[in-house]
Amino acid sequence: MQSLVELYHIETRQPSLGDNTGDLDRLKKALSGSLRGRNPLVPFARIAPVAEAFRQAGFKGHALVIHFPEGPQLVDFFAQAPEILVGMALDLGTTHLEASLVDFLNGRVLARGTVENGQLEFGADILARIHFAATKVGKQTGLGLLHERVMDSIHALTVDLAERVRLKPSQIMALCVSGNTTMTHFFLRQNPYHLCREPYIPVVNAPDPFSAAELGLDLHPAAVVLVMPSIGSYFGGDLISGIIASDLDRQEETCMLIDVGTNAEVVVGSRDWLIACAGAAGPALEGGVARMGMRAGPGAIEHCTIDPESGEIEYRTIGEAPPRGICGSGVIDLVAGLYLARIIDIRGKFRPRQPQAKDRLVEQGDGLAYIVVPAEKTDRGEAILLSQIDIDALMRSKAAMYSILATITNQVGVSFEELHQIYVAGAFGKHISPRQAIVLGMLPDLPLEVYKPLGNSSLAGAELMLTDASARERCRKVVAKVTYVELNVNQEFMLRFSGSRFIPHTDKTLFPSVPFHGDS
Amino acid sequence: MQSLVELYHIETRQPSLGDNTGDLDRLKKALSGSLRGRNPLVPFARIAPVAEAFRQAGFKGHALVIHFPEGPQLVDFFAQAPEILVGMALDLGTTHLEASLVDFLNGRVLARGTVENGQLEFGADILARIHFAATKVGKQTGLGLLHERVMDSIHALTVDLAERVRLKPSQIMALCVSGNTTMTHFFLRQNPYHLCREPYIPVVNAPDPFSAAELGLDLHPAAVVLVMPSIGSYFGGDLISGIIASDLDRQEETCMLIDVGTNAEVVVGSRDWLIACAGAAGPALEGGVARMGMRAGPGAIEHCTIDPESGEIEYRTIGEAPPRGICGSGVIDLVAGLYLARIIDIRGKFRPRQPQAKDRLVEQGDGLAYIVVPAEKTDRGEAILLSQIDIDALMRSKAAMYSILATITNQVGVSFEELHQIYVAGAFGKHISPRQAIVLGMLPDLPLEVYKPLGNSSLAGAELMLTDASARERCRKVVAKVTYVELNVNQEFMLRFSGSRFIPHTDKTLFPSVPFHGDS
Repeated sequence: MQSLVELYHIETRQPSLGDNTGDLDRLKKALSGSLRGRNPLVPFARIAPVAEAFRQAGFKGHALVIHFPEGPQLVDFFAQAPEILVGMALDLGTTHLEASLVDFLNGRVLARGTVENGQLEFGADILARIHFAATKVGKQTGLGLLHERVMDSIHALTVDLAERVRLKPSQIMALCVSGNTTMTHFFLRQNPYHLCREPYIPVVNAPDPFSAAELGLDLHPAAVVLVMPSIGSYFGGDLISGIIASDLDRQEETCMLIDVGTNAEVVVGSRDWLIACAGAAGPALEGGVARMGMRAGPGAIEHCTIDPESGEIEYRTIGEAPPRGICGSGVIDLVAGLYLARIIDIRGKFRPRQPQAKDRLVEQGDGLAYIVVPAEKTDRGEAILLSQIDIDALMRSKAAMYSILATITNQVGVSFEELHQIYVAGAFGKHISPRQAIVLGMLPDLPLEVYKPLGNSSLAGAELMLTDASARERCRKVVAKVTYVELNVNQEFMLRFSGSRFIPHTDKTLFPSVPFHGDS
Repeated sequence: MQSLVELYHIETRQPSLGDNTGDLDRLKKALSGSLRGRNPLVPFARIAPVAEAFRQAGFKGHALVIHFPEGPQLVDFFAQAPEILVGMALDLGTTHLEASLVDFLNGRVLARGTVENGQLEFGADILARIHFAATKVGKQTGLGLLHERVMDSIHALTVDLAERVRLKPSQIMALCVSGNTTMTHFFLRQNPYHLCREPYIPVVNAPDPFSAAELGLDLHPAAVVLVMPSIGSYFGGDLISGIIASDLDRQEETCMLIDVGTNAEVVVGSRDWLIACAGAAGPALEGGVARMGMRAGPGAIEHCTIDPESGEIEYRTIGEAPPRGICGSGVIDLVAGLYLARIIDIRGKFRPRQPQAKDRLVEQGDGLAYIVVPAEKTDRGEAILLSQIDIDALMRSKAAMYSILATITNQVGVSFEELHQIYVAGAFGKHISPRQAIVLGMLPDLPLEVYKPLGNSSLAGAELMLTDASARERCRKVVAKVTYVELNVNQEFMLRFSGSRFIPHTDKTLFPSVPFHGDS
């Protein structure tokens, strides 16, 4: 497997009167032998440094080659082979950026880190930022500012990761960026105006590779920048990453990939075909649902159970830290538990007179709320609450989720039971209990082993692009193969959505394993 | 014949919900059809302007493609096809730059111009400039200054030519540069240090194409910059230009190409083989020989005759302007005339008592001088003189020239008589009378029709690179084919040089058509 960046050992004859070709020409010719006759290209800005380094090294050493799809590029030369040779994979999320450094010499991940997306001050969600992009702020455009902020965040993350492996950012030889289409536009400084306006047209889905210097990234100036291609405004490179990271495009049997963020994106298929759709799932599943909602991080309640008889609640926080809030998986467990203990009904409404509710239901200005953790037991001395409004939001999200899954499978004529595997991407996939999601009617009632968490598959796909030069061609094939179904204008989806706004569903035969409390 | 830059008419469907790919992806896909399936690459900086222009034009119009050898690049888009589409060919001479604008739509040359090389203030010759390059001037390096100056000269020439065809420099889509190896290094801002030091190694002979923006040239930012490849320190891209402009590499019979500047560069060969050499010819033939010497320009005496009986001199100036000096061809005519009238002997020394000398020989501080034009008849009221020192310099130049030609032909076992054609490049070839050069023993005694002036073949070769995309491959083959003979360390050359320091030669059988005045 050829990696994106490789070292080639070179040893040439010393220049002499009888062999007096140019330094760079000598190096290129020698390298061409190692590249099976392919002629490496040297970018203009690299002529002087590469030729100089080659001469200084005594005309032997290690040539650094980046394997662009258009052909190999010779961009640096070392007298001594470096001990590590790194590229950076970057998941460009709307709220957080996550990155890793991968060693090209052995494919290992050397460091991984996260930073908040600096664009948050200009809008929590994509839509707000697209609108902000069109404004003027002094002499700057909103787009310019958004671009600057994400570049700053990338820079901070780069410096952090590079320090951890004792490198300078200028020693990072490649960057592969995976993000949704809007984030990718901000990264590339492209106008996102049409992304949210019918017919939802990106400026570009599949930008060609370019060099770090062209965008002003603080990496090696000749570092190659790859961007995971997107398919449309609502189907970004992060999902293409998910497809290749899960091997969905290589499966013999039909499988499904679910990626849940503000949007729920779903792909169904196998090595023969791929069909995809996306729909607004609401912020409920990203931890934005509850006033006490938070991203999966230390102190977040990621799992909890409520005893159906006693109503006693038990919970577990990430890092076993004092509780600070609830993340998406915790909310799902909690609402499923409330339902099983009949503290909420099938519409998700509180039933204050239910004995299991005990004294945990309190009246707030805008309705009832359930005390998950009383004030004296939390990190900040403030009770962690789940309000009726929070539950309502989750009900919409879970209804959207199930409707998306039902619609897409119905469109391709595949039943849920025929799905060999369901890959669940992201923090959602990592923390969620599929069982509780099934209780809520969010995920189909299938054996639990069908569900497989993927972790950050957006990042994993970007890592794959670095370590396997053939991955780019694989992405190209995936993009060409995917059929995209637009749900925003889909009648079937809207009909299914209504039936899905109950726990687990109006059609209880769909969820045989879930107790139905419609009689109470 | 595919030209380097081409327009392609594109008409696509309007974006819709059912056909919602990205703007740039839509354009690239449509263009790929016109490019027989090849995928055009869009440089990073061109994503936004191209996508924007395509949308503004209503998704139809004319795509501008540059045919890089590595593949096509899409760099601009026009709603209306431009009436002219130009590239610039540039001969990067040591003393002058000459350039032309070529229309890609029909291959025609639209304008041509010349400007002095702004580097002259840092040294008249290549060697002085190489030494200057290594110095520091304030915070600047000499190399930096030399690069700046030549960039300034190119800019001045670009603005001048663009104005003449009513374009902005930013509308020029390509530049092909042809020059000697040192000038090419200055242009590329590469260190020329080793060019003049044994074993004479360039930093680079064949740089890959790059974009105007990478070097900061004031052309279209995505304009492609091609540099004619060189073979070594003393065999530059200007001569490769000469080879392809003269079709030397396509000849069935053996031919010769002579390019005379400060160095005399000679190539012998045919479509089957090419052998080349270069030798210092001295500045005599570039107009630098005489105190009154000048480049071929208005007022320069380009031809003259001396009546062998009366000693009367007649001359013709360029542009029939009042005489201001003598250019190389004038000096050759003059010295040949002096010899035929026996005013100089076979060693090139003045014979003051020869009647034809009349009162034209005057004693100067450093020896005798011949009055070519008396003061009252010149432009500046100063006599135009040819001194003994000037003649001595020419004698060395002509000896070097003949020795080079004799050595190279002897090395390949070809007699002068076997040469089907001798192409004489540059101003030298344009103005010289081969007959007078034969009299001097500078050129072999062959029928005059063998000699064929080429004009500025360095410029012509660069023009060819613009209008014929296959020319670059042709250059590559020429470079691979040429065998270079180093004369600076050649014993045979040194021996021949001694015999050639007489008029026409010590071996008079070599010049049967020239009267031999050795007896006088």
